[in-house]
Amino acid sequence: MEQYLGIDVGGTNVKMGLVDATDGRISNFYSRDPASWRNSGHFVKRLGDAIAIQLVEHPHVKRVGIGVPGLISRDRSTLIEITAIPEIDGTPVIPDLSARFPGTTFYLENDANAAALGEYYFGEERLPEDYIFVTLGTGVGGAAIIDKKVFKGGGGNAMEPGHVPSKHGRVLERNIGKVELLRMANEMRAEYKGQTVLPGDGTISTTGLVAAAAEGDELAQQIFDEMGSMLGDGLVAMIRILDITTVLIGGGLSASFDFIMPAVNRQLAYWLTPYYMKSLSVKRATLANDAGLLGAASLCFE
Amino acid sequence: MEQYLGIDVGGTNVKMGLVDATDGRISNFYSRDPASWRNSGHFVKRLGDAIAIQLVEHPHVKRVGIGVPGLISRDRSTLIEITAIPEIDGTPVIPDLSARFPGTTFYLENDANAAALGEYYFGEERLPEDYIFVTLGTGVGGAAIIDKKVFKGGGGNAMEPGHVPSKHGRVLERNIGKVELLRMANEMRAEYKGQTVLPGDGTISTTGLVAAAAEGDELAQQIFDEMGSMLGDGLVAMIRILDITTVLIGGGLSASFDFIMPAVNRQLAYWLTPYYMKSLSVKRATLANDAGLLGAASLCFE
Repeated sequence: MEQYLGIDVGGTNVKMGLVDATDGRISNFYSRDPASWRNSGHFVKRLGDAIAIQLVEHPHVKRVGIGVPGLISRDRSTLIEITAIPEIDGTPVIPDLSARFPGTTFYLENDANAAALGEYYFGEERLPEDYIFVTLGTGVGGAAIIDKKVFKGGGGNAMEPGHVPSKHGRVLERNIGKVELLRMANEMRAEYKGQTVLPGDGTISTTGLVAAAAEGDELAQQIFDEMGSMLGDGLVAMIRILDITTVLIGGGLSASFDFIMPAVNRQLAYWLTPYYMKSLSVKRATLANDAGLLGAASLCFE
Repeated sequence: MEQYLGIDVGGTNVKMGLVDATDGRISNFYSRDPASWRNSGHFVKRLGDAIAIQLVEHPHVKRVGIGVPGLISRDRSTLIEITAIPEIDGTPVIPDLSARFPGTTFYLENDANAAALGEYYFGEERLPEDYIFVTLGTGVGGAAIIDKKVFKGGGGNAMEPGHVPSKHGRVLERNIGKVELLRMANEMRAEYKGQTVLPGDGTISTTGLVAAAAEGDELAQQIFDEMGSMLGDGLVAMIRILDITTVLIGGGLSASFDFIMPAVNRQLAYWLTPYYMKSLSVKRATLANDAGLLGAASLCFE
């Protein structure tokens, strides 16, 4: 039974666990706030200490996958811009760890890219070898998997769907990211007085929006229709540039999947030719909380 | 001196020539209307006859590159949808030619992809290994070169920038393709009565537009400003999805390059972060009439 060590690095949480290559079962799960690592000024060394514990206990583990929230070098050796942990920018993390752990192979990837790949190896549904992955949440992130591999593009950091031009002179993420979505809801609330269950005191939450939409609330549904419409337009650009017809939607706001899909489908049908429509498939990603960790482990497949 | 045979297949013209691998010099140029090939029902066989003449005369030529105007299979063996020559759709052209010419290697590619690659090997300027190529003309076509190779995307036919959503509920090519551009010019002509050198009788041509813009005609410049603005928005989507910061503009309408660029640059600066802007470069493609033939020959590099 082959096992990989998956590591999901974040600014306020580092998760680590052994992952069965065959079924994605996670064991030896470990999660911690890396504040003291950050304060020490030796983040990667502390991360190495945590890795050492795992590898000493489980010497059969020879591959370690690491997902990080930010830009990395095209050769996947070095951190470039990790906005949540800026003190590690520029660190050649793969050479450093490889020197400390001879005989172990390390893999580095952006966390959204890793999560996308994780869906291929550990997701509930069998996926084709090419698909687009878009995460909805505070921002709008993404990845493309082509030939079962993360698509790096030219500079190494392809697929920033949140930064594609959208309506109102704003990029997509400034239209349908969490903050903008709630602003839109609070603004539109005035027009729906008495016809919505959503609060009028500026406290609408995304969870509240999803719940209201599920109950048939018109305002909530209207907001998700707007969101789906703008997401759909953005997907068309990705589909025509990448020639990929399977799309996975993940991220916290993918809870709105059922309510954005009518508008997403409407836009796809509006823009795309029958050639595309007949093979098109937009689905919800299946790895929820473990997406980061499983994604990191999936980097170890070759 | 290594030579490749380059073949640019079109519905009304097939061009063929030997191309020096080192400097792109074309010899034994041959061009013909393939009407009789098409009528014969044996297009590929007739094409093979023309190839045979070249290969018999020049037995040192061992590689043949073919560019075709349409969709081809992901493995680059078979024609899928060649709208200008529909009777050859479905033909396994590479296996067919390889069987007839043992010892010769054949390469097949979409013509816009081939033209894009040709800029790398035979263009006047030294290019990076990753760039976006967009052709302006009747339609808006394109290609991406990544790692000195044609980017195929998922299904094999990536980079259809003409079909990306643009303003007015239309795809980009329906806004800035030749026909739409002239419609826009003829429509706007009314507002510029007496202030433009462009004719008011509906006979504005793209050549006339470019000439007028070069003379400082306000209407012509306004039209290219609109065109550049919409092209710029489309480029941003490609740049953020592919993470590529060099863009080449080719095609017949690239004669307008100087007049669209102010608006293109304005939009790029509006949408992109400083990280992108500092490495961004938009240039005009350098291979004019021979782009198709040289592009086809460039497929023979490996």
